[in-house]
Amino acid sequence: MLVELAPHSSDAELASLATRIARHEDVTAWPLRLAGRCFLVVAGDERLVHRVSSAAIRAWHSTAERGYWLVDRANAVLPRRVPLGSGHVGGGDLWCGAGPCALESVSDTVRTATMVRRAGADAVRASLFKVRSGPYHFPGKGRGGLSALAEVRAGGGLPVITEVADPRDVGAVAQVADCLQVDPRNMTNRALLAELGGSGRPVLLMRGVRATVAEWLKAAEYVVSHGNPHVIMCARGVVSFDRSLAYQLDYGAVAAVRRHTDLPVIFDPSHSTGSAAAVAPAALAAAVFGVDGLLIETHPAPERMYRPGDAAQMYPVDRLAALLAACRQVRDLAAGLDAFA
Amino acid sequence: MLVELAPHSSDAELASLATRIARHEDVTAWPLRLAGRCFLVVAGDERLVHRVSSAAIRAWHSTAERGYWLVDRANAVLPRRVPLGSGHVGGGDLWCGAGPCALESVSDTVRTATMVRRAGADAVRASLFKVRSGPYHFPGKGRGGLSALAEVRAGGGLPVITEVADPRDVGAVAQVADCLQVDPRNMTNRALLAELGGSGRPVLLMRGVRATVAEWLKAAEYVVSHGNPHVIMCARGVVSFDRSLAYQLDYGAVAAVRRHTDLPVIFDPSHSTGSAAAVAPAALAAAVFGVDGLLIETHPAPERMYRPGDAAQMYPVDRLAALLAACRQVRDLAAGLDAFA
Amino acid sequence: MLVELAPHSSDAELASLATRIARHEDVTAWPLRLAGRCFLVVAGDERLVHRVSSAAIRAWHSTAERGYWLVDRANAVLPRRVPLGSGHVGGGDLWCGAGPCALESVSDTVRTATMVRRAGADAVRASLFKVRSGPYHFPGKGRGGLSALAEVRAGGGLPVITEVADPRDVGAVAQVADCLQVDPRNMTNRALLAELGGSGRPVLLMRGVRATVAEWLKAAEYVVSHGNPHVIMCARGVVSFDRSLAYQLDYGAVAAVRRHTDLPVIFDPSHSTGSAAAVAPAALAAAVFGVDGLLIETHPAPERMYRPGDAAQMYPVDRLAALLAACRQVRDLAAGLDAFA
Amino acid sequence: MLVELAPHSSDAELASLATRIARHEDVTAWPLRLAGRCFLVVAGDERLVHRVSSAAIRAWHSTAERGYWLVDRANAVLPRRVPLGSGHVGGGDLWCGAGPCALESVSDTVRTATMVRRAGADAVRASLFKVRSGPYHFPGKGRGGLSALAEVRAGGGLPVITEVADPRDVGAVAQVADCLQVDPRNMTNRALLAELGGSGRPVLLMRGVRATVAEWLKAAEYVVSHGNPHVIMCARGVVSFDRSLAYQLDYGAVAAVRRHTDLPVIFDPSHSTGSAAAVAPAALAAAVFGVDGLLIETHPAPERMYRPGDAAQMYPVDRLAALLAACRQVRDLAAGLDAFA
Repeated sequence: MLVELAPHSSDAELASLATRIARHEDVTAWPLRLAGRCFLVVAGDERLVHRVSSAAIRAWHSTAERGYWLVDRANAVLPRRVPLGSGHVGGGDLWCGAGPCALESVSDTVRTATMVRRAGADAVRASLFKVRSGPYHFPGKGRGGLSALAEVRAGGGLPVITEVADPRDVGAVAQVADCLQVDPRNMTNRALLAELGGSGRPVLLMRGVRATVAEWLKAAEYVVSHGNPHVIMCARGVVSFDRSLAYQLDYGAVAAVRRHTDLPVIFDPSHSTGSAAAVAPAALAAAVFGVDGLLIETHPAPERMYRPGDAAQMYPVDRLAALLAACRQVRDLAAGLDAFA
Repeated sequence: MLVELAPHSSDAELASLATRIARHEDVTAWPLRLAGRCFLVVAGDERLVHRVSSAAIRAWHSTAERGYWLVDRANAVLPRRVPLGSGHVGGGDLWCGAGPCALESVSDTVRTATMVRRAGADAVRASLFKVRSGPYHFPGKGRGGLSALAEVRAGGGLPVITEVADPRDVGAVAQVADCLQVDPRNMTNRALLAELGGSGRPVLLMRGVRATVAEWLKAAEYVVSHGNPHVIMCARGVVSFDRSLAYQLDYGAVAAVRRHTDLPVIFDPSHSTGSAAAVAPAALAAAVFGVDGLLIETHPAPERMYRPGDAAQMYPVDRLAALLAACRQVRDLAAGLDAFA
Repeated sequence: MLVELAPHSSDAELASLATRIARHEDVTAWPLRLAGRCFLVVAGDERLVHRVSSAAIRAWHSTAERGYWLVDRANAVLPRRVPLGSGHVGGGDLWCGAGPCALESVSDTVRTATMVRRAGADAVRASLFKVRSGPYHFPGKGRGGLSALAEVRAGGGLPVITEVADPRDVGAVAQVADCLQVDPRNMTNRALLAELGGSGRPVLLMRGVRATVAEWLKAAEYVVSHGNPHVIMCARGVVSFDRSLAYQLDYGAVAAVRRHTDLPVIFDPSHSTGSAAAVAPAALAAAVFGVDGLLIETHPAPERMYRPGDAAQMYPVDRLAALLAACRQVRDLAAGLDAFA
Repeated sequence: MLVELAPHSSDAELASLATRIARHEDVTAWPLRLAGRCFLVVAGDERLVHRVSSAAIRAWHSTAERGYWLVDRANAVLPRRVPLGSGHVGGGDLWCGAGPCALESVSDTVRTATMVRRAGADAVRASLFKVRSGPYHFPGKGRGGLSALAEVRAGGGLPVITEVADPRDVGAVAQVADCLQVDPRNMTNRALLAELGGSGRPVLLMRGVRATVAEWLKAAEYVVSHGNPHVIMCARGVVSFDRSLAYQLDYGAVAAVRRHTDLPVIFDPSHSTGSAAAVAPAALAAAVFGVDGLLIETHPAPERMYRPGDAAQMYPVDRLAALLAACRQVRDLAAGLDAFA
């Protein structure tokens, strides 16, 4: 549950209340300050929580029913914009991140960053850690690649997004990357999410390919409740019984996230379709559904990439600018139609 | 399998060859003339088919692997346009059918037809037969409503689309309706599909909510192989593990159908979303994916409808014209972008 | 909805009440006598039903919420045993139907019937009509095979189960077959289900491979509400995201059906697994879950069957007796353990 | 890929070859000794691997196609029995682990251990770490509970199984627990799996509720390739479109795992059904499918548990012995029937 306290409660007050509320050994409580408000996050069976009296306590918010509260738009705790580099995601403009999945060649990636920047992208994505289904795939350069990532960042002139998969890497990676991405397969990795809560970097949280929207929101709540209000929700398709495209395009989930939360929601037309030819319509359709941004796989020379499967979904860099312009146009058109009124 | 004959083979030749090829009692063969070409459709284990010699035989097309051949674009048997009323579906313009699901009040439906015609729709939908999951729902007016349907047709000034669910009704309904719709739950109703093959009316074939694209194409093949090349494929969402909208929007299937076949494919943003508020983005996104048309539920007074659930997804008639204009605009924009190149 | 009347209401009373209740043109009502009780089945929006007063009316049962009432165990309308041939399904013993899917060779099928009878089976299955996904497969001998079916029945010494797929065939087939089977793809074929309601033969209702238990129960309600209380529910696996076996084994649905209804529920270990090697464990597991019977594909010479895919799932006839004995043993053992207490 | 070397290659040889093979910075290689055989595990794009010549190299095993090799039965690398405590899982007898999900009260858990030991269980399960979907649930006692776990182990007289979710906890927990469990939500947590590969403890690897069998096997390969051959596969149901029970019972996956690998496979009838009443049939059916063991939730006083949802699936301790006896009986019966022949 969440205990809301008077906005200007001191650290000492928080600590003292946390101790009293979490008197039972199977209850934990920690402070959380968000949007000028002051909370204690309480983990444990609600029946064991000591409901102490205190003039500082404004409300006891039960989380038993839905499992999330902080990310709920109704509670107005989160900002509508997530800062990323010198810009932000959400709150109006259509943001764009672009680049390869994994950081392979540094020079290729610097060149990608330069090209996507000129095409209007706001960030480059290049991961040092990749979650692979088996142990034999290239797992990314790992921590040893941090200097390469710094080179990309400096050379490309764009903030960098990189994936992180192990809680032990979060601290070091957060020193270099501007945004930390969570793979669909780590959406329920509690230890990682908790660590990201303390990372001080915005988190790009991909939906699990078989996760419900409620599970996705609870994963976001995990990060926020551990101290980080800057979560970007990234839809990227879900598994279906029929694979016309790599995944079913989850625009309904985009609409649902927008209804439930103020967190920005972006769409990945590359992984969701698995096909360069389908990236444009998938991106346009996402724009129609009002996404706050797009995350597009692109590479100037896909044939040099390690995995041929990835290469098949690279959108040509030289067409990115036109695609983004069209996306902005249809997004405005849909908004003008008052599509969701 | 399909046996292709010389284009100008006579009926007598066909009958004679059919008898010789289907000599085994568990093999059946019947003639099919399509696009100036001449076929024998052969149903039965390919090992039992008598591969007779004849100067008239051009080719033996095996259907063992995929189960369809006639609807395959590669074989160029089907027209790109399906005639419907005095117009057609497919081949360029964005077609629109609109109206309620079931024909309830005649006067309301005539009014709907008039309004959607003014908004630019090409046909009105009003069904006499509804497939219901249980026996207690209003199943439609049935054959007793044929005169009501004729009234809607005359009064509304638009061709009418009506559902048919029982092979015994096809003949009578085809006398009045301009287009016969197959419900998702009847997509695998072989007796119905075969009868529709002889109906002389275009068939609007809805995808089963849990059917694969291959199963959907095989259902179309059913109709075509029984003599009717005029099938309109209608995507309307599929069941998923998560219900942010009523169904998962199956744009990937739209793309797949366009890739595999020349049959026009349309989208139903009403049943697929189950929510009036989501109809506009769902329709726009379908336009982006290049659909040939839209089938939109609308009613001037949803509160009078029998099922409140249906009422919740009625798009306001007075906004239909603007929606169609926007859909045409984004469709052109996507095409200009060479989205599927 | 269902209107329950005094048990001995006359036909004239029923007809008169039906007329008064269904005064609105979009409401239909028909009489139903079951288990010594007397009902009017009313189809249509409940708001349009005329709630007339009559001393004969015992209760108005709403069906709005769940869509079924007659099959609900709580209402005790249905018998626990369905008569089939000179025996019955349900109510204690483990019933077994066995045989090929389609009737192909008469002599092979008579031989199968003789063999499965000796192994302890209660009925032979051999279908004249097969629902095929495409038009090119052998669709069964059709009506022309009725005499062949009669031969199998006479020669094999067992009641015969045959599939029916077109409402126009029900009457003729019911003259010969002892039990009429509904394919998963026809589970929602309303016209067929209604016709089966008047067939006077027990109906073996297969679950759609993607149907929910509620949809399945509503399909049974369809048959029962049209006059036929003798429905045998047949679980046969459902589609899943992973195909270790042909289908996911739906034992949970078996348990659910047993909880909700008195209708007997049987299991098809052949279609659900698609593999002869998995038939035995799948059948044993079904027995553990307390099924009332098994429907097992078997054929003395699978290599002669038309479809190699079907051949792969034929259980060896000579092992059937041992399998049934084992199934009875584990079923008793599970019952003794009070498994569902 | 995997490089197989002469069985008695020295550490120095392995290190030297690893360096030469993984000369490219995006390739990594490490030694692995299993079953008296000697391998180098190579992670990275196979095109970048330096295929050096060496007399010590016996074979280059490509893993590109399926993603696993070590767990493949055909390669005979793994033992059929996994040691656990002083006993083992697999290779003949039916093993049983029982106990609550989370370690809550120490005295209750010691009592549980004592009771399940008397009932014939081989291990007690009590977790210090629980993966929760949201941050507000009791996440387990964590590392602070290690002494409590040691108490349970000493007091109950059984080896203990405990979950681990964070790679940083693996070392400390492996000091106390006899077996480390991986939650379905961590099945794709690469960092955790790699760490477990070096833990020296058997790993109980639960299938993700939406994971394919291939993904599950690749997770096992992860652990094995990092040095630990002792993986117990635990099936526990998968998500389906219909929830008659909590999950679809994945017996097909049990059969598939047994076909593909020598790793023992057990079944969890408690989480898969979510209902105490369904535990017995689910366990018996698992036995019929030849599982090597069962993992059963039980607690002497479910009403004291923190989560009422968990309490609903606790099997009564006093009926465990009878259930295990029945499971052994049906397992033998199925084996005698040569069910999978």
